Amino acid sequence: MKSAQTRELIRGIALRSFREQGFEATTMRTIATQAGVSLGNAYYYFPTKNHLVQELYLEVQQAHRAAAAPLLATSDDLATRLGIVFRAGLEQLAPFRDYASGFLTAMVDPNSPLNPTSPESEPARSITVGLFRDALTGARQTLPKDLGARMPHALWLAYLLLCLYWSYDRSPEQRNTTRLLEQGLRLFTAALPLLRVPGVRAPVRKLLDLVAEVGA
Amino acid sequence: MKSAQTRELIRGIALRSFREQGFEATTMRTIATQAGVSLGNAYYYFPTKNHLVQELYLEVQQAHRAAAAPLLATSDDLATRLGIVFRAGLEQLAPFRDYASGFLTAMVDPNSPLNPTSPESEPARSITVGLFRDALTGARQTLPKDLGARMPHALWLAYLLLCLYWSYDRSPEQRNTTRLLEQGLRLFTAALPLLRVPGVRAPVRKLLDLVAEVGA
Repeated sequence: MKSAQTRELIRGIALRSFREQGFEATTMRTIATQAGVSLGNAYYYFPTKNHLVQELYLEVQQAHRAAAAPLLATSDDLATRLGIVFRAGLEQLAPFRDYASGFLTAMVDPNSPLNPTSPESEPARSITVGLFRDALTGARQTLPKDLGARMPHALWLAYLLLCLYWSYDRSPEQRNTTRLLEQGLRLFTAALPLLRVPGVRAPVRKLLDLVAEVGA
Repeated sequence: MKSAQTRELIRGIALRSFREQGFEATTMRTIATQAGVSLGNAYYYFPTKNHLVQELYLEVQQAHRAAAAPLLATSDDLATRLGIVFRAGLEQLAPFRDYASGFLTAMVDPNSPLNPTSPESEPARSITVGLFRDALTGARQTLPKDLGARMPHALWLAYLLLCLYWSYDRSPEQRNTTRLLEQGLRLFTAALPLLRVPGVRAPVRKLLDLVAEVGA
């Protein structure tokens, strides 16, 4: 078997295992066994399990983009466009619901390469930040320039917080998360004109700068 | 040695160890050894390490209340009063800065008794929620009644998010956390009059209800 094929085989098995068995039960050993390769061979392609989690992040965010992009073409309303990106992101998480706590525990450490704000997570993060940028730039409503430049990163963080809420959400089919998103978007829309008021715009800009320190 | 004294000895050693060695390095075994009691005896007073973490939560929140209460007597301005409670809370965390990631990892699992939203954490949580309630009720600015009733719990969650930001904050002496708090309070003050506008009040109320589902 060719090198690229072996890599893809290991990757595919690992990603399916993360979905079906969760973070903790998926180990380099179980992956190697299922792929029919030696443990050393698996480590040759992916030096740590974390490298495979980064492949998972990438796959999930590519699916997020693929789900959101065609819907974004259907509306130029800002709240609608943001809702599309948030909802498409939440939909990608559904298969991981049963294993949310295991992933969450592995992700939350600020020093972990699995943290969504880590340098290692930059490729996946840039897809999501880019989606929020697309949602903003394609809308007929515009933000003040200084805020607009800072907003995609802040929206990505808001999306992480929504995912955090989702992992705590015990309502049927996590409907409370969808409701929280809807009310949040309603308030965002109501607050939009205020962002041009100097007494609001300045503290919002400072807030966005401070928020951007996370994962910048 | 009397039973109550032994309990207090174990408790004191555990709490000091959490501060000085962190969450992971503090085990029932190291605590028992330092207290000069058998492991079985330590377990008799505290069935799990989690029970000792709850003692820590209580101590930290009692210190939070003791630090905030005299300062609250000095002002009837809402933003000032909220700032007092938030800042006094952050000050209690300072000794744990080096071990923030270990505690965070243990706390984030939605099903863990160490999660701040768990039933087990209710005694410590009620102190913090009570502090925010005091900050609101003693202020000359009042909130619409429906929002005022929901606000202490929401402020407690905002405090948890600020602690999360603090644990990621790499600025000297975590000054960005203080700045984020200041800008957040400025915006809260600016937004206060809007809370009486029906088109804002209704989605805010729904948002607070959804937020209250966490740790309710």
